[in-house]
Amino acid sequence: MHPNPPDLTGATVAELSETELLARVFPLLADARATLVGPGDDAAVVAAPDGRTVVSTDVLVEDRHFRREWSSGYDVGWRAAMQNLADVAAMGAVPTALVVALTLPGDVEVRWVEDLARGLSDAAAPWGAGVVGGDLSGGPAAVVAVTVHGSLEGRDPVLRSGARAGDLVVHAGVRGRSAAGLAALSAALPADEATEAARAGYLRPVAAVDAGVAAARAGARAMIDVSDGLVRDARRIAAASGVTLALDEPLEAFADEAELLAPVAAALGDPGLGDPGLVRAWILTGGEDHGMLATVPREVGPPEGFRVVGEVVERSEHEVLVAGEAAARGGGWDHFGGTARV
Amino acid sequence: MHPNPPDLTGATVAELSETELLARVFPLLADARATLVGPGDDAAVVAAPDGRTVVSTDVLVEDRHFRREWSSGYDVGWRAAMQNLADVAAMGAVPTALVVALTLPGDVEVRWVEDLARGLSDAAAPWGAGVVGGDLSGGPAAVVAVTVHGSLEGRDPVLRSGARAGDLVVHAGVRGRSAAGLAALSAALPADEATEAARAGYLRPVAAVDAGVAAARAGARAMIDVSDGLVRDARRIAAASGVTLALDEPLEAFADEAELLAPVAAALGDPGLGDPGLVRAWILTGGEDHGMLATVPREVGPPEGFRVVGEVVERSEHEVLVAGEAAARGGGWDHFGGTARV
Repeated sequence: MHPNPPDLTGATVAELSETELLARVFPLLADARATLVGPGDDAAVVAAPDGRTVVSTDVLVEDRHFRREWSSGYDVGWRAAMQNLADVAAMGAVPTALVVALTLPGDVEVRWVEDLARGLSDAAAPWGAGVVGGDLSGGPAAVVAVTVHGSLEGRDPVLRSGARAGDLVVHAGVRGRSAAGLAALSAALPADEATEAARAGYLRPVAAVDAGVAAARAGARAMIDVSDGLVRDARRIAAASGVTLALDEPLEAFADEAELLAPVAAALGDPGLGDPGLVRAWILTGGEDHGMLATVPREVGPPEGFRVVGEVVERSEHEVLVAGEAAARGGGWDHFGGTARV
Repeated sequence: MHPNPPDLTGATVAELSETELLARVFPLLADARATLVGPGDDAAVVAAPDGRTVVSTDVLVEDRHFRREWSSGYDVGWRAAMQNLADVAAMGAVPTALVVALTLPGDVEVRWVEDLARGLSDAAAPWGAGVVGGDLSGGPAAVVAVTVHGSLEGRDPVLRSGARAGDLVVHAGVRGRSAAGLAALSAALPADEATEAARAGYLRPVAAVDAGVAAARAGARAMIDVSDGLVRDARRIAAASGVTLALDEPLEAFADEAELLAPVAAALGDPGLGDPGLVRAWILTGGEDHGMLATVPREVGPPEGFRVVGEVVERSEHEVLVAGEAAARGGGWDHFGGTARV
């Protein structure tokens, strides 16, 4: 349509047709290694070398998962990709390709959409995974629905249901940073090193994708992407496997994370590292960090990138124990909602 | 959570947690034949027997693609599935599995969501394709983002770019019904046989999925899902293939469809089957019917379910001709938008 694309600085998506907008976005998408047919036809074709495709979908909704005044288009694209990449990694699969269904209000700037495409691409690029297709529509709020695909490379998928009593409970990735970052943004805390690390953890989380694949290769028996909080997601493994996950004291198991987050809690008026306390609550119940929680046979030990954070025991009255106490009563969070009650 | 699920007649989604809502929806989803790991873990695993997966995503947005006062949840689920199934069929692939990212305002009734799940499942069931995963979120409008997967069964994908001069242009499925149905709903036309057929074409379109697969098996050279109008989608094949698609007079090529739609046009005050006229415009420019437009070598002839609607000729000044006239001038629709100008 435009042999010489016009300068669209400041233009909004309402000023372009879908075709024109896609023509600006496609060149920003990195090639996926597994792409056999890329964007531009009715559908894409993605390689599935071992005859199986891992698939998961996750949506980000404006004013519910992000705010456009806090998150750039790049941030939103990055997060949308990362939360999906984490889901295939939690099966032990290597990400191969993404598709994106994007709903946008007319007042969104074209530049914001281009930034979103860059964020999606950059987040997926380390695994050679790219955006192979998409759909664009107008709507009352920005909604980014990403579907991700992955390859198990011949391995069995690592399910939530494989944990066995005697396994080590292991974790890879950061804990509590996204929750602390959201709290810091909500309170408009001044920027310092700790606050910045937390904000970055919320705006551009880095999922423990490599660790997920490493755990699968090492023989992990169960795994989950920690998207809704350590306790809540530990409970999902426990329920699916019919066991109890006995987690170590989080201020010790995640002492480094706790130390990093303590100044953020202090700036919010919290006493610090105690129980109850904000830091402990962030580590136990904070969502959206996209670390990997896995169980591995004790003789295997923690796979690369993982730390030991507990052990699997025979199913007792409670599905999750934290430092020996029932999580629902002793830990300071709501049983169903995973919401901190501190 | 609920050993005996409560009666939720009239309840809205705001009254349930995501987990509770999913627990009501999962049992409504038919098993997909290709499902290796279904809903409930971090991701699903879908069989891809020939080492490739066809993938496409399409979104339906409330008040843009549907209205809740016209479309039931079942209708919306059906349409969301069908428009996606059409995309993989247009590559010549058999649908295998869908995932759904659903954004819902809090006032949507639980029953509406259950109906949507049934509509999705029923639309995909004939091909043994089921919903293998999903995500639910609140939001200001209902947004249904479906991603569909398909299997090429060892065949090459049928792209838009394969048309060659001398090919027959063939079409399977209905034409103009969705546009006529939308017009009938907008004008609140009284129900009669023709109006009902048109309304059904809008509310629950039936994509020509089997025909797409049959065309691929028969050796179709190019194919597209007709979602944006016959002329507009013919232009996409022409552009991708570097040819011109010379379409026959639509009132003759689609005489049966024209006859069916004529009473709807008459009820709207249109003279009927002439040029310009509503029926001709619906057939040429109406979207969302999800027929298949393909080109096949002349010696192959129309595959099962297809009719001949034109021929491929060497690229001339215009990408699409209708009854020998340039589509942009002679047919009564906008060159870029595919919008009827009648």
